[in-house]
Amino acid sequence: MPLGQRAGDKSDSRFSGMEVLDFPAGECLPAVLNQSLSSGFDFLLSPLVDPAYRPTPGAVLPVSASDLVLSPSQWSSHIVGKLSEWIDFDAEDEQLRLDSELTLKQEVAWASHLSLQACVLPVPKRSSCGNYARVVNQILQGLTNMQLWLRLPLEKSEPMDDDHDKVKNNDHMNEMEDSWELWNAFRLLCDHSSQLCVALDISSTLPSINSLERWFGEPVRAAILQTNAFLTNARGYPCLSKRHQKLLTGFFNHSVQVIISGRSKHDVSPVEGVLSGDENHTEGILIQHSLSPYLNYISYLYQRMDPLPEQERFEINYRDFLQSPLQPLMDNLEAQTYETFEKDIVKYTQQYQRAVAKALVDRVPDDAVSTTKTVLMVVGAGRGPLVRASLQAAEETGRKLKVYAVEKNPNAVITLHSLIKLEGWESMVTIISSDMRCWDAPEKADILVSELLGSFGDNELSPECLDGAQRFLKPDGISIPSSYTSFIQPITASKLHNDIKAHKDIAHFETSYVVKLHRIATLSPPQPVRPEFQFCVLDWLPLSDLVFTFTHPNCTANASNQRYTKLKFDMLPDIGSCLVHGKQLCI
Amino acid sequence: MPLGQRAGDKSDSRFSGMEVLDFPAGECLPAVLNQSLSSGFDFLLSPLVDPAYRPTPGAVLPVSASDLVLSPSQWSSHIVGKLSEWIDFDAEDEQLRLDSELTLKQEVAWASHLSLQACVLPVPKRSSCGNYARVVNQILQGLTNMQLWLRLPLEKSEPMDDDHDKVKNNDHMNEMEDSWELWNAFRLLCDHSSQLCVALDISSTLPSINSLERWFGEPVRAAILQTNAFLTNARGYPCLSKRHQKLLTGFFNHSVQVIISGRSKHDVSPVEGVLSGDENHTEGILIQHSLSPYLNYISYLYQRMDPLPEQERFEINYRDFLQSPLQPLMDNLEAQTYETFEKDIVKYTQQYQRAVAKALVDRVPDDAVSTTKTVLMVVGAGRGPLVRASLQAAEETGRKLKVYAVEKNPNAVITLHSLIKLEGWESMVTIISSDMRCWDAPEKADILVSELLGSFGDNELSPECLDGAQRFLKPDGISIPSSYTSFIQPITASKLHNDIKAHKDIAHFETSYVVKLHRIATLSPPQPVRPEFQFCVLDWLPLSDLVFTFTHPNCTANASNQRYTKLKFDMLPDIGSCLVHGKQLCI
Repeated sequence: MPLGQRAGDKSDSRFSGMEVLDFPAGECLPAVLNQSLSSGFDFLLSPLVDPAYRPTPGAVLPVSASDLVLSPSQWSSHIVGKLSEWIDFDAEDEQLRLDSELTLKQEVAWASHLSLQACVLPVPKRSSCGNYARVVNQILQGLTNMQLWLRLPLEKSEPMDDDHDKVKNNDHMNEMEDSWELWNAFRLLCDHSSQLCVALDISSTLPSINSLERWFGEPVRAAILQTNAFLTNARGYPCLSKRHQKLLTGFFNHSVQVIISGRSKHDVSPVEGVLSGDENHTEGILIQHSLSPYLNYISYLYQRMDPLPEQERFEINYRDFLQSPLQPLMDNLEAQTYETFEKDIVKYTQQYQRAVAKALVDRVPDDAVSTTKTVLMVVGAGRGPLVRASLQAAEETGRKLKVYAVEKNPNAVITLHSLIKLEGWESMVTIISSDMRCWDAPEKADILVSELLGSFGDNELSPECLDGAQRFLKPDGISIPSSYTSFIQPITASKLHNDIKAHKDIAHFETSYVVKLHRIATLSPPQPVRPEFQFCVLDWLPLSDLVFTFTHPNCTANASNQRYTKLKFDMLPDIGSCLVHGKQLCI
Repeated sequence: MPLGQRAGDKSDSRFSGMEVLDFPAGECLPAVLNQSLSSGFDFLLSPLVDPAYRPTPGAVLPVSASDLVLSPSQWSSHIVGKLSEWIDFDAEDEQLRLDSELTLKQEVAWASHLSLQACVLPVPKRSSCGNYARVVNQILQGLTNMQLWLRLPLEKSEPMDDDHDKVKNNDHMNEMEDSWELWNAFRLLCDHSSQLCVALDISSTLPSINSLERWFGEPVRAAILQTNAFLTNARGYPCLSKRHQKLLTGFFNHSVQVIISGRSKHDVSPVEGVLSGDENHTEGILIQHSLSPYLNYISYLYQRMDPLPEQERFEINYRDFLQSPLQPLMDNLEAQTYETFEKDIVKYTQQYQRAVAKALVDRVPDDAVSTTKTVLMVVGAGRGPLVRASLQAAEETGRKLKVYAVEKNPNAVITLHSLIKLEGWESMVTIISSDMRCWDAPEKADILVSELLGSFGDNELSPECLDGAQRFLKPDGISIPSSYTSFIQPITASKLHNDIKAHKDIAHFETSYVVKLHRIATLSPPQPVRPEFQFCVLDWLPLSDLVFTFTHPNCTANASNQRYTKLKFDMLPDIGSCLVHGKQLCI
């Protein structure tokens, strides 16, 4: 029974599980599962093989239950496998290393046989775990659907090496181990495998907020919440600290499932539960399981969250999804793309019309209104929204206007012609079916209006096109827009990195994508987005893209649009180490 | 309004359109569309550009309507573009050829601008149309989603070349043109593009049935039914000949949409329609459109069809979908795969149990029952269904049995052990966790039972495995099965060909796929499937696979499983030319 259903939220974070601590021998797994399901848990994190087992020739693997005791769909929907915790690949003892490798492979094969969705790899016993990663990487090559979740403590901990002498003599003895670094080393040795994920053990202490937020850019699949992480409220019921609550809400928002683990520390009578006054979320749940009070509290935290705003619900399927930016110079846009853009009233009426009106007033004083006709060129007129905005600005300011509408897409030109005819603008507007870069203009313009900005400012070649068009702008003419600047911010985004990596070529790594970023961690403060642009698309870029300002007209001698720069970012404090997968760029 | 909704049938064949014969000038397209939609048609096949237009520099394309008169979704859902019929790429007149190329490209660009789903290419004017195909192929390279449907007459016709002298002097003057050959030449020149499809004009005469059925393997998207193809019934209403009815039913079953074309030949009063007695399918349709009587008749034919059987509805998503066969020797099967196979009661109880019982009776006469113990080996025991069937056969016949269950999948061996324990078979069954090809058997077997047949008999390496296992079969021992034969049949299957071609490598063309074949044409009579195998999967294979019989035990000296053969197939009579894309193979 999921924690709840938030309207429109299709994330899988609303499922919760519990960890089975004792090996369910003697085919008792179905009973354990049934009790947990009827108590409101959705799945079990359960050992698959007797922990006393060590490989011996000819031995049959002592599994917790034959595949026949649960149906295939029960296995795959309700069981996450917990791989043997005794395994140690980086021990001095060779036999232990060999036994570990053989056992892990047998267990993963059994889990694949059962079509489990995931298995949890035990916490590395040492901070240097190269052999562990090697074996896991080898196993990952043969897995088709199953994920492996590497279990790690969230809090920083004592160095894990049990080579005591070394630790004692080590200068770093007082430094705590950062489990993110362990994760990073492990996943790099597994070549960023998309099937290798993380399960974080959460106990009573938490590291700094900035350090926690790094995990939102990593493939964390489960938060294993220890019962000893809970506090006790005045009525004796379990609850969490504010910081723990905030962390869990963050996990819920990033599709991280909760698994409750440990022995119950709160012996709560099932009759008068702390939440019994709230019928909505205790209805139908019998408080019979020793971990039920913890689940009820988690469920309460989930249901307490604000529902997603409508706009966010609409866009949920675009989260962390790579979209190739439009290339309107190379490809002619389609009618429905124009249709979408033309709906942006703010842009045309509030921004462009205002800007043209100001330029007209600036160039033509009130006493010259009847004698002066301003020449305005819309370069990239599309189906005419800027033509309309310009004519409305002229009417609003009482200025006389002559408009040239330059458009290279012959299909949009067809629509422009019918628009001019329909609106009776024939005397004011001349349509030029041409690329602005090669048009031979009959006169020079006072005002040059364009909307060639892509998501990153320059990625739809606005600078190159306007550089080609500025020949027919008068020396004192005005370009709208007159300048724009791109901004960037370094981020961790393992999901996007893996999606690009799946193409197995450099070309996709060199592509700028438009993405509604969600499962990322920002690593340095963002620079502010310019307020005059109301629309701001969040974008993701490879390492090569940087911050630039473009100004029109561009009066630099030998102006080139080749740009290169280096920027220095200051890391957020307390964040610890992190991996920069890419940059978030916007204008 | 679709023709109807047959339960579970998700094909798009239930939509019907009408052809707009006159150019809808002066923005009258919305009115034409509204009238057609309210009369029950789903879409229009409509000209996009004034047929009087010839390219002139600077001219604006005289389109039938600005993109603004319909919404983007109306354009893409309700309009199929009809490209100018005057174009002739293979004419002697060079200007005509150049004008044709320029116009076609402009029209397709306009259709792309409107995001139309498809455009119809005009009927080739000549049987040699290399330049036409070249231009279309060039256009196809730049299309992303839109399809081009080449319009062709279904019936054979007079040779199309208007080079009269040549025709007159030609020996083949009396031969009719086969439009399939024209299509085949055209699509080969377009390299089997998956966006190039066919629209067939159907008039009053039809070619032979076998020749018609070739089209079921081709990407036919529309049947353009001419009003002159209709007969008149006793009450003055339009109807179709039995052969036409059968053809249309075939088209409906193969996702071919119907477009009604031509002037109405039946002036039927709207009040007392021939079908007015049947309220189910005239309800809500106002007979106001001159083509409504034809649409009502087509709708009646559609609704008269038998609903798809439940099994067929369940499998509809697997139609013409390439599935890679299982490779149980290389990959260990998963629990849920065993589960599916074990449900086949017919196979285990009716076939294998019967066969083992017969073998036991054959080897042990009634008077030796108490003294003789038969040694039976199940090679590839999986989770035990053949072990169970063999023990039941022993009980049924009163024979004593000693069973070796040989299985190479260690996960299935785990289940076997718990099965033996659960059933109390420890004294009768010995489990061998080994590959049968390398097991060192302690004694020889009287009976060897296996179920290693793949979809094609040998593709899961049954011959190779059993050749390896027959060492431990007594010289007079029995193998169950003792022999199997594969059968093939040549087919046209352009959809599957294109799906394989999309991988752009030879490896996929060399792979044997399991397919629920539907949109195919069989080109030669199939050979009968052997009756003792109740399960028959239809398969599709590249050219290299042929018909073989395998016998076990295989006593040939130097037995090899390399096989090669040539087969000769007799074409169905009257079929005309056709293209063999592959072979249907089964056992």
